[in-house]
Amino acid sequence: MSLTELEELAGEIRELILTTVSKNGGHLAPSLGTVELTLALYSVFDFSRDRLIWDVGHQAYTHKILTGRRDTFHTLRTLGGITGFPKRAESPFDSFGVGHASTSISAALGFLIASEIEKVKRRVIAVIGDGALTGGMAFEALNHAGQLKKKLLVILNDNEMSIDKNVGALSEYLSQLRLKPQYHRVKKEFEDFVKNIPFRDIGEKILLASKSVRHGLKSAIVPGAIFETLGFTYLGPIDGHDIKSMRDIFQKVDVIDAPVLIHVHTTKGKGYAPAETSPDKFHGVGKFDKASGQVFKKKSPPSYTEIFSQAVIDCAARDDKIVAITAAMPSGTGLKKFAEKFPRRFFDVGIAEEHAVTLAAGMAAGGLKPVVAIYSTFFQRAYDQILHDVCLQNLPVLLCLDRAGLVGEDGATHHGVFDLAYLRTIPNMNILAPKDENELRQMIFAAVGKKFPVAIRYPRGAGLGVKVEDKPEKFSWGAAEIVLESQSPDVTICAVGTMVKTSLDAARLLREKNISAEVINMRFVKPFDSGLVKKSARASKLLVTCEEGTLTGGFGSAVAEFLTDEKISTPLLRLGIADKFIEQGTRAELLDMCGLTAEKISLRILERLNEMIFGFLMVAT
Amino acid sequence: MSLTELEELAGEIRELILTTVSKNGGHLAPSLGTVELTLALYSVFDFSRDRLIWDVGHQAYTHKILTGRRDTFHTLRTLGGITGFPKRAESPFDSFGVGHASTSISAALGFLIASEIEKVKRRVIAVIGDGALTGGMAFEALNHAGQLKKKLLVILNDNEMSIDKNVGALSEYLSQLRLKPQYHRVKKEFEDFVKNIPFRDIGEKILLASKSVRHGLKSAIVPGAIFETLGFTYLGPIDGHDIKSMRDIFQKVDVIDAPVLIHVHTTKGKGYAPAETSPDKFHGVGKFDKASGQVFKKKSPPSYTEIFSQAVIDCAARDDKIVAITAAMPSGTGLKKFAEKFPRRFFDVGIAEEHAVTLAAGMAAGGLKPVVAIYSTFFQRAYDQILHDVCLQNLPVLLCLDRAGLVGEDGATHHGVFDLAYLRTIPNMNILAPKDENELRQMIFAAVGKKFPVAIRYPRGAGLGVKVEDKPEKFSWGAAEIVLESQSPDVTICAVGTMVKTSLDAARLLREKNISAEVINMRFVKPFDSGLVKKSARASKLLVTCEEGTLTGGFGSAVAEFLTDEKISTPLLRLGIADKFIEQGTRAELLDMCGLTAEKISLRILERLNEMIFGFLMVAT
Repeated sequence: MSLTELEELAGEIRELILTTVSKNGGHLAPSLGTVELTLALYSVFDFSRDRLIWDVGHQAYTHKILTGRRDTFHTLRTLGGITGFPKRAESPFDSFGVGHASTSISAALGFLIASEIEKVKRRVIAVIGDGALTGGMAFEALNHAGQLKKKLLVILNDNEMSIDKNVGALSEYLSQLRLKPQYHRVKKEFEDFVKNIPFRDIGEKILLASKSVRHGLKSAIVPGAIFETLGFTYLGPIDGHDIKSMRDIFQKVDVIDAPVLIHVHTTKGKGYAPAETSPDKFHGVGKFDKASGQVFKKKSPPSYTEIFSQAVIDCAARDDKIVAITAAMPSGTGLKKFAEKFPRRFFDVGIAEEHAVTLAAGMAAGGLKPVVAIYSTFFQRAYDQILHDVCLQNLPVLLCLDRAGLVGEDGATHHGVFDLAYLRTIPNMNILAPKDENELRQMIFAAVGKKFPVAIRYPRGAGLGVKVEDKPEKFSWGAAEIVLESQSPDVTICAVGTMVKTSLDAARLLREKNISAEVINMRFVKPFDSGLVKKSARASKLLVTCEEGTLTGGFGSAVAEFLTDEKISTPLLRLGIADKFIEQGTRAELLDMCGLTAEKISLRILERLNEMIFGFLMVAT
Repeated sequence: MSLTELEELAGEIRELILTTVSKNGGHLAPSLGTVELTLALYSVFDFSRDRLIWDVGHQAYTHKILTGRRDTFHTLRTLGGITGFPKRAESPFDSFGVGHASTSISAALGFLIASEIEKVKRRVIAVIGDGALTGGMAFEALNHAGQLKKKLLVILNDNEMSIDKNVGALSEYLSQLRLKPQYHRVKKEFEDFVKNIPFRDIGEKILLASKSVRHGLKSAIVPGAIFETLGFTYLGPIDGHDIKSMRDIFQKVDVIDAPVLIHVHTTKGKGYAPAETSPDKFHGVGKFDKASGQVFKKKSPPSYTEIFSQAVIDCAARDDKIVAITAAMPSGTGLKKFAEKFPRRFFDVGIAEEHAVTLAAGMAAGGLKPVVAIYSTFFQRAYDQILHDVCLQNLPVLLCLDRAGLVGEDGATHHGVFDLAYLRTIPNMNILAPKDENELRQMIFAAVGKKFPVAIRYPRGAGLGVKVEDKPEKFSWGAAEIVLESQSPDVTICAVGTMVKTSLDAARLLREKNISAEVINMRFVKPFDSGLVKKSARASKLLVTCEEGTLTGGFGSAVAEFLTDEKISTPLLRLGIADKFIEQGTRAELLDMCGLTAEKISLRILERLNEMIFGFLMVAT
């Protein structure tokens, strides 16, 4: 294709992305930023042979459209439709499934080694954002790739953003690089000159001077020094919306038989004014009006995130030992407001969940009361830090796991359904889940003063619309709460978090069938209220656990362990998410698929009770 | 203390370390390398006020001796004695507990922030090795610290080693720095000269030249460019055995109100010839003869590690798609031999477990059959990569978890007791544990051809001394094996890995009490042989699970889930490790503490059977 044709195509693609995302929601700004970059890559490389690995993958819509998914693109992020991230099962062009950040260089290096061993000649290209580059494993991969000296191509898609404004010393350094276009101007002119400088002499002359001079020299003389140090040849920055320049450099770079990093400067949200102006708002966005950029908002109660945000602010106002940490998610976790109120007590560490947790452990050891807010799925990154740095030392760190449970449209890579199970394996850990937004607030009030690790997990989206009490209420640590009492229950449902309301609804459906159900809001998953569970198990024909999380090792598993160890033989029905990965869909669709609606829960319980009676009859006859 | 006194003290400490470690085993070479560094730090800073955080902590013996543990140092690494790593409960000078690598800069930054908020003036110092620096979270912390611009002092203890020779581009770069002593010579001489160079002019003149010139310029002009880029002032390298130089620089650096990294060059094993010659052998070492450096070796069967090593080599000889990856542990995991045989198919990524796993995922996606060998405790670092990159894509990666279960003297930070529980939470994962070294070999043979993720966990130390079959035997995937049959068992013990032999011994003890026990070698923890377990549950009065791992979410938990879901009411006794952290001791002592000896297992079973009869009588009367 000619350049003009490519530029025309870019316009069409941008329009398709915009139209689709305005209807389905999705990662608009990241994908608008990479339209030209993707076209430049596809016009130089042959990805039926070469391999392209997107980091995170939220910027890969153009890639999807170019590789056979134009006609189905309208199903983006819907149940059974096109996923929001590259996914191997979806297309052979999706070489590597992604969703979490900072994996692309590792994976690309893996592909490159595989190609060499299989004796296949191909280019392998990783495209990583400046946000994802702050993740430690990206550095691990650069360090390894630099040593291996293989012909790996890394494109640094620098849009100055993670989801929010990017942070970290490296990020500051990249902005310095971007501000130095003079490199390109003067490059040719001085090339011959430089070749003739006796290196050793110059080297010694401008050595180790005063700090400020050194800093100046560093960025002036060696653009990309950090990448060069790690064994990469650094090229750039180049304009990531100029297809011609990118094509040129992608072609020319082929002669370098070593790891190369090309620094491409893109604009997040490019081509759509509302997204260019507010790239954070349009990073991952719901349905919106294309013409005005107005995001459609259902009138809904405050979100769990908002309640969390205000609760932490209220605590921090009373206690100046409280500090808050997030990993590149001040908006998403609601800590932006905290940052505005308490800028010196707020820390956005970038995409660096491991550091976030150990930083918190250090702060706690130093006498502070840190609150770490990260999405449930991303906390998986810090399993060892939670175990080894926080819990082994029994330090008072409060982990707040937002987006726990099924997150909906972001799909398999993003569901927060493992947290109860993986956190439960760790000694000293306390795990809580609120039944509604008021309880979340109360749990935060109760947790911040504790002298041990606490994790609170709560779902994505709006609360139930209950009254939120300003002041701390009585909250008995470790105690569950009977939310629906029954004198002689046929069944007692022990429900966790979001499933409390669903279980109450299920209990109502059961009552219509003359089944008497008691419902317990567990509040605590670890250690849970074993006294009450024991009592309930003895008083009921059937005990049920209900959780929006995996059944393998989750809360139901804890109750099964407990009944087993306590030799309690009351039948237990465990409801939750089966041992498999769940794809995307609306939260309602997915909950239904997993059997976690009031209707399905009541049916499962009825079924089981019938079976018990039938089983009993069988034995009796 | 005068310099002479300090140097004398260094000699005494070295002698104490040497004597103690020769008797107790321990991290000799790392701790011998930091004697002078520790003395220099203690002679400049006041650690009753200031904070010192050791990375990993295996180099902190001098620190322990200087802070009130000289008299108890002979109890190093023994049950109830001094731990091998800094530990908060042990001394107020152990500011932060460590054991896993790369956490010190995060923790130190946390302490520094805490001091600021608490308005306490103190220096906070992290000492990190060049090995630990390859861990991604160290980079995350540098990146964050560099942005915060706080007065953090990081000492890079560069001994050119992880446990084995250090790897990675950064490591190569550090050697370049070490080879350039001329910096120091010429520094003073040219300082004034440089101050007068109009920066912009020079900057433009020596710009972006040919690649080789650029590489030269980079390291010549900006020593420590990578650290400078990240916002640190780099100083060094200096001799880490020259107390005077170190004291000088530690004192002078106080004027810099910004993050500083001091590059200290030490010799691992310093002062003890055998350790200087073989720092890898003396990194973590058992008892040895001080005079000769001869490590005492009990005549024992080949270790699991050796069997693993040979099995992978044998597989790789037949299948050139097999590649092996480790994270700074070629010796420890036994892959050193593999590396010698197949250098192009071996990858030591440095201390970088996250990258190791995702690299493997990339290789698997590219068509290879990667084997990743890492200690169980360090695999915790890669929980998310195992979940998100390997299992979600159902890729054929074989994870080999060495040092699973109780590791003994290294203590709480190093026990591999969580693996069954955390791996079990992940869909698509297959988890195996061999009963002996021959079965380990057979499991590797069976696993390398599989098209899905497999994890094999095996213990530290010698095998049982069974005959190791050269050739692959029949190995039915997913099937458990009855190792002791009983026609009408009172009890069936479902045992995992190391606990198979112990359970057989327990069964023999039970037979003496006229209790008939069947013993099953589970082989598979996930998915386990549910058919056989069901049959056994129905045939036995009591079912027992026995595992060298946590009871919370582990194998016994899986069986409890299964019996619950299958409505099988056979009583289940779950034996394993309680939900708390286990300290150090010999493996035998710890197994005994955890009730995992034949004697204690048989007693628990007897107790339970008695109770069942008694309970039955209670009901009957």
